[in-house]
Amino acid sequence: MKIFQQLLQLKERKRGFHLITTEIVKALPQSNELKTGICQVFIQHTSASLTINENADTTVRKDFETWFNKAVPENDRSYVHNDEGSDDMPAHLKASLLGSSVIIPIHNGRLALGMWQGIYLCEHRNDGGQRDIIITAWGE
Amino acid sequence: MKIFQQLLQLKERKRGFHLITTEIVKALPQSNELKTGICQVFIQHTSASLTINENADTTVRKDFETWFNKAVPENDRSYVHNDEGSDDMPAHLKASLLGSSVIIPIHNGRLALGMWQGIYLCEHRNDGGQRDIIITAWGE
Amino acid sequence: MKIFQQLLQLKERKRGFHLITTEIVKALPQSNELKTGICQVFIQHTSASLTINENADTTVRKDFETWFNKAVPENDRSYVHNDEGSDDMPAHLKASLLGSSVIIPIHNGRLALGMWQGIYLCEHRNDGGQRDIIITAWGE
Repeated sequence: MKIFQQLLQLKERKRGFHLITTEIVKALPQSNELKTGICQVFIQHTSASLTINENADTTVRKDFETWFNKAVPENDRSYVHNDEGSDDMPAHLKASLLGSSVIIPIHNGRLALGMWQGIYLCEHRNDGGQRDIIITAWGE
Repeated sequence: MKIFQQLLQLKERKRGFHLITTEIVKALPQSNELKTGICQVFIQHTSASLTINENADTTVRKDFETWFNKAVPENDRSYVHNDEGSDDMPAHLKASLLGSSVIIPIHNGRLALGMWQGIYLCEHRNDGGQRDIIITAWGE
Repeated sequence: MKIFQQLLQLKERKRGFHLITTEIVKALPQSNELKTGICQVFIQHTSASLTINENADTTVRKDFETWFNKAVPENDRSYVHNDEGSDDMPAHLKASLLGSSVIIPIHNGRLALGMWQGIYLCEHRNDGGQRDIIITAWGE
């Protein structure tokens, strides 16, 4: 078995859900050397997250932003962590609800995403800046 | 270290939460050859998901369906992605809240689930059809 | 590639969110032998969970407890699984929302958590008792 790893810095995106599958695949071309394996994508932040969801209709990503803003509201008076902006504490909560990594099998030398699956960068802050990612792939 | 991989098609289930631990274990008998390792189960869909929860009382799985239907309601007028049925956009959201994979250690040659842990297929659509799964296990 | 695994029993903690990064790192010193790899931490329970979030300000962990208690209320009359205490069914739901494992890359021989990232034990029960964890690290 072999293992490959690559650091990647994603450019700043505005708050919301963004498809980054192509960037991820390009960043670790060595994963093509693996016929059978796994690829993990990890985000080194606590106010942005990663998830897998529909890669086609952009309205899905809009509705994600709408639902998460309702479910985890800003300016809730019960928050005590509120000195970094009204979007900060909700960002932490959304990040843990969605998770800091996605893990995808490699099958027949390719990332085995389903036909409709794509990788989302979930930017929960208004001004999140660049985001650091680590991609690791292993297998044989 | 060795790695094994198996594709599995789960039969159609009705909307709700379904225990699939036995099917998963049966589908990859080679994982028994690993004394120490990891098993990942991945679902190639964006409107169904996988999670680990209680394997005993069926009422837990009923309450999961009830809670998720309340937390992610159908027919919310704020959804813009609504041309594939009222259960579609909620299904995408539920799928990301729960996640597309479960990852379980292999210890002493066995899947090291806790006494009360089982693997759930979370079917979020009314007519989701068959669901494609990839099981990958690695270790030594 | 090599793989290491260690069982760890966490002492009882009160309901809430607790930083356990140091305990996890200490429990598997062999992970230092890996220059490039992955570390998975798995909890063998269905009413406690693991997540990654801010390691600094304790108010973040307080707000996690507050938000999750609102989002997944106790004593909801729609629960049918309610014979193990009012905190039991909410605990199962919270556990699946957050997940039973965290997976962190190892880069240059160290757990590659971001500057603000720590590992949380999320104790969802009033009297959860000790919690069993399995740490697995692999790489080269």
